[in-house]
Amino acid sequence: MLYIIGLGLGDEKDITVKGLEAIEKCEKVYMEAYTSLLSFGLSSHGLSNLEKFYGKPIILADREMVEEKADQFLSQAQHSHVAFLVVGDPFGATTHTDLVVRAKKMGVEVKIVHNASVMNAVGICGLQLYRYGETVSIPFFTDTWRPDSFYEKIRENRNLGLHTLCLLDIRVKEPTLESLCRGRKDYEPPRYMTINTAIEQLLEIAQTREESAYTEDTECVGLARIGSEDQMVVAGTMKQLLLIDFGAPLHCLVITGKTHPLEEEMLDFYRCRT
Amino acid sequence: MLYIIGLGLGDEKDITVKGLEAIEKCEKVYMEAYTSLLSFGLSSHGLSNLEKFYGKPIILADREMVEEKADQFLSQAQHSHVAFLVVGDPFGATTHTDLVVRAKKMGVEVKIVHNASVMNAVGICGLQLYRYGETVSIPFFTDTWRPDSFYEKIRENRNLGLHTLCLLDIRVKEPTLESLCRGRKDYEPPRYMTINTAIEQLLEIAQTREESAYTEDTECVGLARIGSEDQMVVAGTMKQLLLIDFGAPLHCLVITGKTHPLEEEMLDFYRCRT
Repeated sequence: MLYIIGLGLGDEKDITVKGLEAIEKCEKVYMEAYTSLLSFGLSSHGLSNLEKFYGKPIILADREMVEEKADQFLSQAQHSHVAFLVVGDPFGATTHTDLVVRAKKMGVEVKIVHNASVMNAVGICGLQLYRYGETVSIPFFTDTWRPDSFYEKIRENRNLGLHTLCLLDIRVKEPTLESLCRGRKDYEPPRYMTINTAIEQLLEIAQTREESAYTEDTECVGLARIGSEDQMVVAGTMKQLLLIDFGAPLHCLVITGKTHPLEEEMLDFYRCRT
Repeated sequence: MLYIIGLGLGDEKDITVKGLEAIEKCEKVYMEAYTSLLSFGLSSHGLSNLEKFYGKPIILADREMVEEKADQFLSQAQHSHVAFLVVGDPFGATTHTDLVVRAKKMGVEVKIVHNASVMNAVGICGLQLYRYGETVSIPFFTDTWRPDSFYEKIRENRNLGLHTLCLLDIRVKEPTLESLCRGRKDYEPPRYMTINTAIEQLLEIAQTREESAYTEDTECVGLARIGSEDQMVVAGTMKQLLLIDFGAPLHCLVITGKTHPLEEEMLDFYRCRT
């Protein structure tokens, strides 16, 4: 049996009782260490916090391991209980869907333990979840690669009066260009896009368009570390949010569509006073 | 302090450890009994299961109580710890946003404990969450009231290649027409829309339109009791799903947009073989 267990967003206590009981049954406990590792402070002593709380040693599984060596722990799951821990909800990332497909093809039974993810916890800003359109991802621009497919999606959403959740790029364990050329594996330091960088890139793309889907005066909500004790939620125009230091990752951004009075009332609590 | 605590979707063990610890601190524990009461089998002995597991008596708060008498428990929360339990995530329903706004206006500190809700747990069917457009609600048709605002939204979503999550009507504690006329309060028996009824209504509306946004051959996914031990997920055309008995509530329906190969692979596991 493979248990894919969502850990939620904040700390080790955001696991559900059902998830905790499943871990207790498992012989091996793996944890994805690529989509949003930082939430649980895994760079420092966070992992041992988790291990202490869950009462089991945890094997960190990076992207290569999950994508290339999944068969190894899936074959363990054919004969014993194996847990795979995921920050947020198990279906927040495509990789986990792929894992389920592989498991089912190998005849491994899969149980999912759901939890909160950014896709629903973003509701905390007061914008109603059923008024969101397609979610977009904002990738880091490079000197030569400035993809802008998010722009059309935001435009469609705003034309329909819908809000847009922007997920911001995370670069963890990216091989350096140099190492790729040499066939070695050296990794870049991890990078997490800030709300500020996201807004800069959004405005850069809008400036190249004739009729802009949004401007620096468009109302947005910046959210940092959702679900954590020190989460930060600020509503304001893009121009205003550009000046705010949201602190440590992870960040995300919502571009508002047409807002209702109750939504406005909630946003008022978060509005920046500059 | 007011704790608004998401209970998740399945049973009493879907609460997070953080949520459970918050309940332990609280003098009074209220639970919303209107949005999706049935998930926890509250009609029978489900409530006592919750009370036993959480170790506290629970006061059921129906819609009238939350909307009309919120001030009462909010003033308790000014001086002591009060928990308000919500099926799914706290921001799944507008009512809870309203509660937060009221609390903040009264100077009551609010803490949110997130959990899974249908808005992210629907990811279990394999359709990627970032490929959904606006969520729609399908209300029960009556002889004289056949609202169809969902139709245009589904059309927009499908034009953009996006999936549509359809939330199906729940009628709990609705006053009877007769009782409204007499100024008394008698209530209709609770009703929960099935996937079958939703599809019938969807097809009825499509038939009145010239260019239809979907037909009886459109691929959908029916999901019943998501997150429960006996959840049921079936992929098929509207015509096929019409013939399936999904059993007890709650039901929801996804109308697919353009699917990707990995999404198709997951749907294959759920496809009905008729």
